[in-house]
Amino acid sequence: MSTEVLTPPTVTNGVNVTAMKEVISAVQANPEIGKFNFRLKNSWIEGDRNRSTIKDFTGALTTHRADGKAFVFENGEHQVLLGRDEAPNPVEWVLHALIGCMTTTTAYHCAARGIEVGAIDSEVDGDLDLRGFLGLSDKVRKGYSQIRVRMRVQTEAPAETIKAITDMSPVKDVVGRSVPIDVSVETY
Amino acid sequence: MSTEVLTPPTVTNGVNVTAMKEVISAVQANPEIGKFNFRLKNSWIEGDRNRSTIKDFTGALTTHRADGKAFVFENGEHQVLLGRDEAPNPVEWVLHALIGCMTTTTAYHCAARGIEVGAIDSEVDGDLDLRGFLGLSDKVRKGYSQIRVRMRVQTEAPAETIKAITDMSPVKDVVGRSVPIDVSVETY
Repeated sequence: MSTEVLTPPTVTNGVNVTAMKEVISAVQANPEIGKFNFRLKNSWIEGDRNRSTIKDFTGALTTHRADGKAFVFENGEHQVLLGRDEAPNPVEWVLHALIGCMTTTTAYHCAARGIEVGAIDSEVDGDLDLRGFLGLSDKVRKGYSQIRVRMRVQTEAPAETIKAITDMSPVKDVVGRSVPIDVSVETY
Repeated sequence: MSTEVLTPPTVTNGVNVTAMKEVISAVQANPEIGKFNFRLKNSWIEGDRNRSTIKDFTGALTTHRADGKAFVFENGEHQVLLGRDEAPNPVEWVLHALIGCMTTTTAYHCAARGIEVGAIDSEVDGDLDLRGFLGLSDKVRKGYSQIRVRMRVQTEAPAETIKAITDMSPVKDVVGRSVPIDVSVETY
């Protein structure tokens, strides 16, 4: 029998950095481990309302959450867009996904570099011209024309370092290749 | 006193088509009415968790929901991605926004054309290679490489008509200019 000493993991920003480095090593050794497939089902309810059920996904060569709880969330539209405003609308959800991903990316990548973060507070907004959705002009795109992100981060790292880290965000990659995103970062 | 007869509005697919046509006329007459700005605030909690507060937005020359309820939702990450799985993760929220928008767009644009829809049930999934987020390869993008959407729509309209209508979706515009989206529509 060995007499191993269990070393406690390094945790920075609430992220288990020891486990993160194990993930990085595992994906480097076998890229198949890094291949993820996320998915969900959605059913229309009526008018502006529909409901997604988010459950299993595949990654690290395994299916997860198959027997676990499902996350169930709706889309809606405000009355001014002919709905009942019982849930955020799809373009609001895009902003939630975008800033959520930029925030998680900041916490994780700072942790991996040993940069401590005390707080991240952000505002995000996007401009959308309804003429696109309504088909009133071919010159107006249907989605956002411009998105602005303002992040305020409590850290000793320079704002430029944080801003560069947000470029690692998967949702910023998805949205930012399609819509200009103006990012400003303030540190304190 | 007038003796107006109140004509009930035309409602198709749960959408007030009479009101929709009034919106279209109003935006045609004054494009400023069609300019919307959606926004939210987000605060990091710890590690994988952050929380968005979705409240006011501007559109139709007015600020809405300023005094109303706020929608509050979190982002999380599953344990395999070093989180606690207390909420969907940001790339799952992207799929929720995408299919929600394609579904609402189908219900609304079918209503405007007088096409009745009885049900819309969809599955959506996306492939994501973690090497992008981890910075292990410059050749691997950080976001989704491919998204697939399968819609099943109860309607007498041809599947091709429904598929073309989904191209009016603002979130499909945002995501689809960045990520290839394979859309299949089955009608019954």
